[in-house]
Amino acid sequence: MQMTEAKRGMVTPEMDAVAKAEGKPVEFLLRGIAAGRLIIPRNVGRENVSVQGIGEGLRTKINANIGTSPDYANIDEEIEKAKIAVRYGADTVMDLSIGGDIDDARRRILRAVNVPVGTVPIYQAGIEVSKRGDIVGMSSDDIFNAIRRHAEDGVDFVTVHCGVTKVAIEALRRSGRLLEVVSRGGSFLAAWIIHNDEENPLYKEFDYLLELAREFDLTLSLGDGMRPGCLADASDVAQFQELLTLGELVERAWAKDVQVMVEGPGHLPLDHIEVNVRIEKEICKGAPFYVLGPIVTDIAPGYDNVTSGIGGALSAAFGADFLCVVTPSEHLALPTVDDVKEGVIAARIAAHAADIVKLGEQASRLDSEMAKARASLNWEKQFKLAIDPEKARRLHRGGLSKEEPCSMCGRYCPIKLLAQFMKKPEPSRTRCW
Amino acid sequence: MQMTEAKRGMVTPEMDAVAKAEGKPVEFLLRGIAAGRLIIPRNVGRENVSVQGIGEGLRTKINANIGTSPDYANIDEEIEKAKIAVRYGADTVMDLSIGGDIDDARRRILRAVNVPVGTVPIYQAGIEVSKRGDIVGMSSDDIFNAIRRHAEDGVDFVTVHCGVTKVAIEALRRSGRLLEVVSRGGSFLAAWIIHNDEENPLYKEFDYLLELAREFDLTLSLGDGMRPGCLADASDVAQFQELLTLGELVERAWAKDVQVMVEGPGHLPLDHIEVNVRIEKEICKGAPFYVLGPIVTDIAPGYDNVTSGIGGALSAAFGADFLCVVTPSEHLALPTVDDVKEGVIAARIAAHAADIVKLGEQASRLDSEMAKARASLNWEKQFKLAIDPEKARRLHRGGLSKEEPCSMCGRYCPIKLLAQFMKKPEPSRTRCW
Repeated sequence: MQMTEAKRGMVTPEMDAVAKAEGKPVEFLLRGIAAGRLIIPRNVGRENVSVQGIGEGLRTKINANIGTSPDYANIDEEIEKAKIAVRYGADTVMDLSIGGDIDDARRRILRAVNVPVGTVPIYQAGIEVSKRGDIVGMSSDDIFNAIRRHAEDGVDFVTVHCGVTKVAIEALRRSGRLLEVVSRGGSFLAAWIIHNDEENPLYKEFDYLLELAREFDLTLSLGDGMRPGCLADASDVAQFQELLTLGELVERAWAKDVQVMVEGPGHLPLDHIEVNVRIEKEICKGAPFYVLGPIVTDIAPGYDNVTSGIGGALSAAFGADFLCVVTPSEHLALPTVDDVKEGVIAARIAAHAADIVKLGEQASRLDSEMAKARASLNWEKQFKLAIDPEKARRLHRGGLSKEEPCSMCGRYCPIKLLAQFMKKPEPSRTRCW
Repeated sequence: MQMTEAKRGMVTPEMDAVAKAEGKPVEFLLRGIAAGRLIIPRNVGRENVSVQGIGEGLRTKINANIGTSPDYANIDEEIEKAKIAVRYGADTVMDLSIGGDIDDARRRILRAVNVPVGTVPIYQAGIEVSKRGDIVGMSSDDIFNAIRRHAEDGVDFVTVHCGVTKVAIEALRRSGRLLEVVSRGGSFLAAWIIHNDEENPLYKEFDYLLELAREFDLTLSLGDGMRPGCLADASDVAQFQELLTLGELVERAWAKDVQVMVEGPGHLPLDHIEVNVRIEKEICKGAPFYVLGPIVTDIAPGYDNVTSGIGGALSAAFGADFLCVVTPSEHLALPTVDDVKEGVIAARIAAHAADIVKLGEQASRLDSEMAKARASLNWEKQFKLAIDPEKARRLHRGGLSKEEPCSMCGRYCPIKLLAQFMKKPEPSRTRCW
């Protein structure tokens, strides 16, 4: 287990690989993993995985959600989505399949990509139960068996909504939300708790969950079932009540050397983002923060790649470690392959913009390379450095430009003009801010 | 003139219209315009214009750039871009035409849209001169005659790069930039100053410019010819040297009752944005701040609608008043009609996300309406409230959803599920943050 080894001061091959990829000394990884501030999600049984570190001081990572739905269950297409996501920079993939043969989807996706894979086993537990009755008829065994099945298949991290508890539901009732629960797994558990008047098994039997996680070095992603589903519900008592519970569970996980991250909103006005990140880091003692979005306005369905790009960039700049891709189809439909690509690129832009703040030159040197390519009107180099070389090339060519630099200014290119009149000294300035 | 009337305490029909549109008492407009913190760009000769207020306390406005290029000069298409921009929420349009019949383009655009129209007359001055020689052969008369011609046609605001001065160019030389000057108008003037070893006529003869502006109540948009063209050049001495000059000119304009706004970056790392806005507001005594982007990474050509959406949202939340649309084709080519639409929508999202912070309920009530439409699974209402109803409807339908809420969760819709188990109280919470 990564955390056990880190606490003992033993470097694992995964730590070594992450240290190299991030340009950090391996001691940085050791200290971070031992303290819980960094994680390397990797199931001991997973094969052919290019590991990723997530957490403070590392490059901001992004996850792309894929998965079948009851209305449309085409595993080949989900695999295509997973591949395009990785191609455009997704660091991990989560399989959220809820339609068709869920086991088959997960197993094929695990073989199709070499990035860490996450799942939300409660979906499968609930859906299988719902086929013989009602979701609220799930037993504790149904839930844990689903988690075990996913872990046995080699899943590297699972979302577990352990913080959806009786007390969180009481807070939800007091909160007067416009949209009660928008988390799918959260809604399964909230309905279950209300119907059965019992405590959430993932909370009540958290020690058992930890035992299970230890068996596979399965990373737990503590889900935010109470995340706000609209700006009006942001940062309310239900959300923070759940976060307090998650903070407690983080420490219990660490005591058993189980790697954890904490999931966060969701929908937040711009001016709530900093506070949400800081509170998570405080309450959860620096555990990596994994945010879905946040999207910063509710009125742009069809463009939630943009709304979440804004929120994601800001969250990551303030310290969020892991961004979940939001596609243009969010709130409307299962995303298409193109939607996934659009979402991944917006999230990558957000992560990179934040990394320029968090990591300085290590991230911004790419931007400086692009600036130099622009200064020398070297188009091939610009395309090569672009986050989406094919699109950059296509737009440039489509612009009907002939010999001129680009079809926007044509022969009146400012870069070309000034180069005639100003001798360029060697750039000497260092960014110090 | 709006400012003269405001200083006298006289309400103009334009102030009245803006006060109504913004839900503000007309005294707010009077005080703001008198103090220069607000502007209503409207040429006294412009007909059929739906006026807009720009500045502190008002809704964040967005401008869409259109215009022919030397490589592609199709005025009909530029008019189509202008119309689609206005349809998707552009509050103003700037005609940046530099190809074909520039006068005809401008005049037709002024007739085609009813929003305030801006231009950059130095382009036409330089281009006409370049047809008989070199751009650096422009005379002071060439420049002022172009401005007069635009004003006579009814243009409501013009970008004038008055801050590109000898001292700014000295600062530029010291600065060691990767990309010297990326402003088209800025490059014309910088080349002119270097070549002729003379001071910028727009600076030297600023009093004459003010007289000209007074004749038409032409609003001056003080251009940022020294704006950084890449992250590495952000917030450098050249940029701030120019800003200091602009701050001085703002006061001189106010003394003559000429309305002004100040243009700003450009390319900025996320953590430079707040400071850039605050410095502009400080140095320019609260004059409205008009930003181009800022884009927050250089490596995403093809997606600068997203990079500028991130920077624009943050700028506006910190106090920028006016966002210039950046399209996906920026840095690559003249934008297409679709590119303009994509850019406008990203800027509108940014402006609205910021207005939720700046204006509170006045802006966020739309988001709450959307949340209620989602809670009741009222799709028609969701489409109606969406920033792009057609796209939202198309994606939802394309998702192959039949009777279920949407094809992402299908019958496992969390909203639908929880509604069965949780009686919903009337929402009672007020946002107080």
